Amino acid sequence: MTKIFVNIGLSLDGYMAPEGMAIENWNNPEYKNWGAKWGTMMSWILKQQYFCENLTFGLGGETGPVNDMLRYTMERSGAHIMGKRMFEQGEVSWPEEAPFHTPVYVLTHEKREPWVRPGGTTFYFVNDGPAHALEQARESAGGRDIRISGGADVIQQYLKMGVIDELEIALAPVLFGGGRRLFENLHDTLPQLQIDKVINTPDATHLHYVLL
Amino acid sequence: MTKIFVNIGLSLDGYMAPEGMAIENWNNPEYKNWGAKWGTMMSWILKQQYFCENLTFGLGGETGPVNDMLRYTMERSGAHIMGKRMFEQGEVSWPEEAPFHTPVYVLTHEKREPWVRPGGTTFYFVNDGPAHALEQARESAGGRDIRISGGADVIQQYLKMGVIDELEIALAPVLFGGGRRLFENLHDTLPQLQIDKVINTPDATHLHYVLL
Repeated sequence: MTKIFVNIGLSLDGYMAPEGMAIENWNNPEYKNWGAKWGTMMSWILKQQYFCENLTFGLGGETGPVNDMLRYTMERSGAHIMGKRMFEQGEVSWPEEAPFHTPVYVLTHEKREPWVRPGGTTFYFVNDGPAHALEQARESAGGRDIRISGGADVIQQYLKMGVIDELEIALAPVLFGGGRRLFENLHDTLPQLQIDKVINTPDATHLHYVLL
Repeated sequence: MTKIFVNIGLSLDGYMAPEGMAIENWNNPEYKNWGAKWGTMMSWILKQQYFCENLTFGLGGETGPVNDMLRYTMERSGAHIMGKRMFEQGEVSWPEEAPFHTPVYVLTHEKREPWVRPGGTTFYFVNDGPAHALEQARESAGGRDIRISGGADVIQQYLKMGVIDELEIALAPVLFGGGRRLFENLHDTLPQLQIDKVINTPDATHLHYVLL
């Protein structure tokens, strides 16, 4: 059975992205200090062997339960769904061999032909909403799971639709003080949660929840 | 050396109290469902032996690392500081023997004589701000630690003053969707954090941070 899951990094004060982190400031990470804040939040992942290899940073890096979790996250995913902002930031950052190796459905108003990358990643631009993107992802996932990659507003839309099965958060010991919050605009569409697993490391606390 | 610390319960979406939890709705926990939400967030503590005894609910309850942590939290505290709202909610809820057993400094504009309770708790009403309350707490703590009990706005004031040494959060697997957020109004007064310890249980993930 295909599971729909979220696996993201989060600051302790609940932000997925610090204030100032936007495509127009991509080459200016000093702007509102967004680069350092984001780097602190994601420092745990930059050390992992699987991450370095997948982003073609070269060999090396840590192995262990967090690395295993990263590999499992990628291997279980038969399709990804993301928002336009996340795609645009990745478009200028990912290596030519984009690190998904599956179909990726991008929620956007922009009409654009599919963008095929070497290594198995194809980006499809979906103009008719999150429900249709999920349908397409389900068809192409071939029984594997579907990852809602982000950003915050996309995750909120799927949380409100009640379709997310698992929520995995790497909670980093950093405060952003502002930015885009993960949990916002949910109002009364609140899923019930159960703690599934916690992996603690000095860099982040990996919290895995099952949605009931 | 006296440490200044926070030890609170938090919903996964970052709220210390759900919307509707206010003194005027104290006898109406169905209002916006605040009673059930708060009860879910705090379910971990209601089971602990130390908590039940301290609130004179009677004997029984769980023992183990979380219970030990609760006892340690109370025993290390030589003084407490809280806001007016938390005091008012407690005033109608605590047993006659209030569960602090130390001086408690209440930040309020109300002028009121100290309120002495059996069992060693005396509430002092401080009208001249958080710095002065901290001074008084330090004098009376006798080398023991000072707990900033809450609510959110009081903790924010002390975070902004940069005086908090330790932040302990019992992160519960529940979403409130609204209410009083712990991390708000901090802007650029952001402490740096380090993970000190994590205790995981099915009811809450106990996250202990040291502030650098």
